[in-house]
Amino acid sequence: MICKSPIRPSIALVEIAWRQNGEPVPALPIQPDRQVYTEQDDSLMRSAKSNPGRFFEDFSVGMVIEHPTPRTVTNGDRALCNALFPFRHALFSSDEFARRCGLPQAPIEDFAVFHFVFGKSVPDISVNAVANLGYAEMKFRRMTFAGDTLTAQSEVIGIKENSNGKSGIVWVRTKGSNQHGQTVVDFVRWVMVRKRRPGKTSGVTLVPEINPCVEADALPEPPGLDFSDYDFTSAGEPHSWSDYLPGETINHEHGTTVEEAEHMIATRLWQNPARVHFDSTLREDGRRLIYGGHVISIARALSFNGLANAQTVLAVNSGKHVNPCFAGTTVRAWSKVLERAKSSVPGAGALRIRTVASSARTGAFPDESESDAALLDLDYWVLIPR
Amino acid sequence: MICKSPIRPSIALVEIAWRQNGEPVPALPIQPDRQVYTEQDDSLMRSAKSNPGRFFEDFSVGMVIEHPTPRTVTNGDRALCNALFPFRHALFSSDEFARRCGLPQAPIEDFAVFHFVFGKSVPDISVNAVANLGYAEMKFRRMTFAGDTLTAQSEVIGIKENSNGKSGIVWVRTKGSNQHGQTVVDFVRWVMVRKRRPGKTSGVTLVPEINPCVEADALPEPPGLDFSDYDFTSAGEPHSWSDYLPGETINHEHGTTVEEAEHMIATRLWQNPARVHFDSTLREDGRRLIYGGHVISIARALSFNGLANAQTVLAVNSGKHVNPCFAGTTVRAWSKVLERAKSSVPGAGALRIRTVASSARTGAFPDESESDAALLDLDYWVLIPR
Amino acid sequence: MICKSPIRPSIALVEIAWRQNGEPVPALPIQPDRQVYTEQDDSLMRSAKSNPGRFFEDFSVGMVIEHPTPRTVTNGDRALCNALFPFRHALFSSDEFARRCGLPQAPIEDFAVFHFVFGKSVPDISVNAVANLGYAEMKFRRMTFAGDTLTAQSEVIGIKENSNGKSGIVWVRTKGSNQHGQTVVDFVRWVMVRKRRPGKTSGVTLVPEINPCVEADALPEPPGLDFSDYDFTSAGEPHSWSDYLPGETINHEHGTTVEEAEHMIATRLWQNPARVHFDSTLREDGRRLIYGGHVISIARALSFNGLANAQTVLAVNSGKHVNPCFAGTTVRAWSKVLERAKSSVPGAGALRIRTVASSARTGAFPDESESDAALLDLDYWVLIPR
Repeated sequence: MICKSPIRPSIALVEIAWRQNGEPVPALPIQPDRQVYTEQDDSLMRSAKSNPGRFFEDFSVGMVIEHPTPRTVTNGDRALCNALFPFRHALFSSDEFARRCGLPQAPIEDFAVFHFVFGKSVPDISVNAVANLGYAEMKFRRMTFAGDTLTAQSEVIGIKENSNGKSGIVWVRTKGSNQHGQTVVDFVRWVMVRKRRPGKTSGVTLVPEINPCVEADALPEPPGLDFSDYDFTSAGEPHSWSDYLPGETINHEHGTTVEEAEHMIATRLWQNPARVHFDSTLREDGRRLIYGGHVISIARALSFNGLANAQTVLAVNSGKHVNPCFAGTTVRAWSKVLERAKSSVPGAGALRIRTVASSARTGAFPDESESDAALLDLDYWVLIPR
Repeated sequence: MICKSPIRPSIALVEIAWRQNGEPVPALPIQPDRQVYTEQDDSLMRSAKSNPGRFFEDFSVGMVIEHPTPRTVTNGDRALCNALFPFRHALFSSDEFARRCGLPQAPIEDFAVFHFVFGKSVPDISVNAVANLGYAEMKFRRMTFAGDTLTAQSEVIGIKENSNGKSGIVWVRTKGSNQHGQTVVDFVRWVMVRKRRPGKTSGVTLVPEINPCVEADALPEPPGLDFSDYDFTSAGEPHSWSDYLPGETINHEHGTTVEEAEHMIATRLWQNPARVHFDSTLREDGRRLIYGGHVISIARALSFNGLANAQTVLAVNSGKHVNPCFAGTTVRAWSKVLERAKSSVPGAGALRIRTVASSARTGAFPDESESDAALLDLDYWVLIPR
Repeated sequence: MICKSPIRPSIALVEIAWRQNGEPVPALPIQPDRQVYTEQDDSLMRSAKSNPGRFFEDFSVGMVIEHPTPRTVTNGDRALCNALFPFRHALFSSDEFARRCGLPQAPIEDFAVFHFVFGKSVPDISVNAVANLGYAEMKFRRMTFAGDTLTAQSEVIGIKENSNGKSGIVWVRTKGSNQHGQTVVDFVRWVMVRKRRPGKTSGVTLVPEINPCVEADALPEPPGLDFSDYDFTSAGEPHSWSDYLPGETINHEHGTTVEEAEHMIATRLWQNPARVHFDSTLREDGRRLIYGGHVISIARALSFNGLANAQTVLAVNSGKHVNPCFAGTTVRAWSKVLERAKSSVPGAGALRIRTVASSARTGAFPDESESDAALLDLDYWVLIPR
């Protein structure tokens, strides 16, 4: 008899070992002895198949983690980037414009590629994170196009236990690759991760050396790009590389008020499963924390007004989420030119920009980015026609 | 003179017969003598061109209805599936992974195909439904890919008038096909439909025989699929067919709080026009009822955490929407393994799973799925590598 | 030393002239002497690179403006049109249906093409508008398909200063083209635009002559379309051209309640950056004004129920946003047949329709479209099989 009614639960320990094919599989999460985020200690009735993610104790320097869920990006993702962020940079908007810049078609927006790669790393790295502390040494090495399949890998490069015995900091270098095995973006990030068992200390500490910025002569040169025949009229602004002076500030003027549905739709698109963005029951105030990368993309998109020709991001030197962002916030952005540098991309130069996002309504560059209204402080290099 | 100002309304009966090309056209709705959902009896001023949908009296056993609005599915729909549901199953996410599983590219997610087909049937079957009562005998026979065009057809297989004289139950077998005329999914569903004229009884009753489940040896074998060279690392979990024991339960851990914009965007994507999902003025409490299929897709997507290798749904044995779902609800999911069966798909086996979605925050499998918090009780077969 | 810490702002005037390549560039905005929408007079610290948009004084009759941001439309945009509006017209939904109508594949929905072109014109024309006053002479000349790249150009054809000295009316003829330089849509619109310096009057007035409607013998004939082998069953309704009588009214029955996230997602998709749609801090009541075109697309989509065979819009004679629309409004639609005309498209005829959108719950055509509930009054021509 095959079609029987549902089996009653066996009140028994069902503990099935993770599949180990005889070899060490560093990508596989270590099995915790207890599930998280459950209010009752009823784990005895349940299998251990759902993955609670790594805790601080599960990381060690040198671990290499292959993140699951390869993702083929499509024109559907491109359309959603437009729908969710006020992007107007012509290189990502128009196949014709992209071809005039040496590319076969319009690529996937840089930070969207970052979000996909970051999202893959979340289940393995930061699903039990208390906070994302920072990014550095982010290099956008190569364009991604519709049809490419992205995968991600992280190496643990640092570890430091907090003195409170409840958590610690983990540094990883995460790399996103396409289906040809070419790196499209890589970056360092560090997160504060909860310990599974507070109190126990490992005593291990290795704080990695991180460059405060990507040096100008180490900037990536994305293959194919050529700004020699750049179309300023289509791009929307006349300002080229030499028109920007270090110290100059730009008020990007526009603001956008974020809705719950918008940030959740975007964050799911990146397959980022961090619960705090989706589950209104996790925080006492019933609010969902907006994925920090969402604010990065809003700020980058808003920067079009004054930086319309800063077509592509070459590198991120540092990024800091100054305050958490919640639905209802109106995000605005200001930029300051920090530095000009050469680029070997034909017809192009590099600008180092500091963009601050804030909910404040001020005309001036909000240099006191430590205020309660501040959301993001991002230091990065862009490519712009000379 | 052609450009005249708008014609004043002629206060006259404008009753135009539906176009009948000399032959019986069973797909065409029967013209009602009165419009629905209008507060005043002003039908005399109006034409009868808008379609109020069928009422209970309009159905008879043996009717075959060709549903309108063929729909070409694209990578845009795939991206929206990712944006609207937390899907992470690799087969649908990655062209590369899909090719390693024998397919030419990543297919459209199973339940998305169901939603498209279901949506087509709504204007003809359930637009005047009081409630969707259930699904059964649902078989996913063949993968759908970007570029395929879906059409749908239903046959009425049962009818039973309610004793209150106000409504009755209609059973239909609905079939979704691609542009080659191949069936991609078919299922039985039954709905309670309002009568146009309460009180009058037809006396006709035919309750069809429905299998309580799709038997293991009748499971579909979607052409092309081959799990012989399955990549567990990319898929994200090590658990294969033999690791799952009947009786075992899985808490999928994650929850997602649903917003009005999200469920409406999804339900429109499927071209499901049922008013109650979109019009906040229909219910006294001003709430919009979330399409039941939305909860199915959320539950299926959440089940990734513990069932990551259950790449595709082969069949649904039964589905029940235990309680209506409204925006603001945080949907969680638990699964129980009911049965293991063989599959002729190379390298694969079948698991029969019961997944319950609920807004409760409990660690244990919510077996009392009749509670107020319960949303969905779904019994289905998945394909998983051995 | 390259990696230095961020430069402190130089409190100095950074005024960089817009790039002028020796020739007059009418497309480039005139540089204002002050930024807008800032609360403090701190422009001395800032560069003038962000673009505040044109004010009334910046327009003159005969100006031709090439709008930036070319946009390649994709199947992702098509999917989003379906997700954001309840479109069910078969021509845009199915490649198979479109091929039977003479086209190579399903085209991009007409009003979506209009929204893309309109969106491009916003930064140059209406970003400082007080109100959009109207549209006329809109002709949809040619279908747009996935892969086409849209650009837009406007010519100023009229100007009239308001007696209050604070604003004036600007008339433009805007043209959207594809990558082959073919016009896909063109239209006249007029907007009330703020002056930069209230009080000063230019004395210039030229009010253009505008046709009250596109005459029947001047209707576009989109190349390729052929309704000779039209499939009424797939389209969903049996009514053809001769079934519609002038004076006849149709209640489209369905209503849809609009959410903030939905209208912002759509308006961003069109790359329309008008602040008032996105920034909840601009109005004292904290509400975001919904882009008028959003209501047009909702009304057009709802009109499927009764006008399912009105597959494509040929022309818009006039359009008026009777009242602003805000999130939470339930939009309903009614249509009245104004006129029948011939079309040289094989198998097709033209109908002139007046569609009114309103939040009122009335069964009758809401002829008193000046009521508070009225949202849109649109007079347009559609193509329908004979």
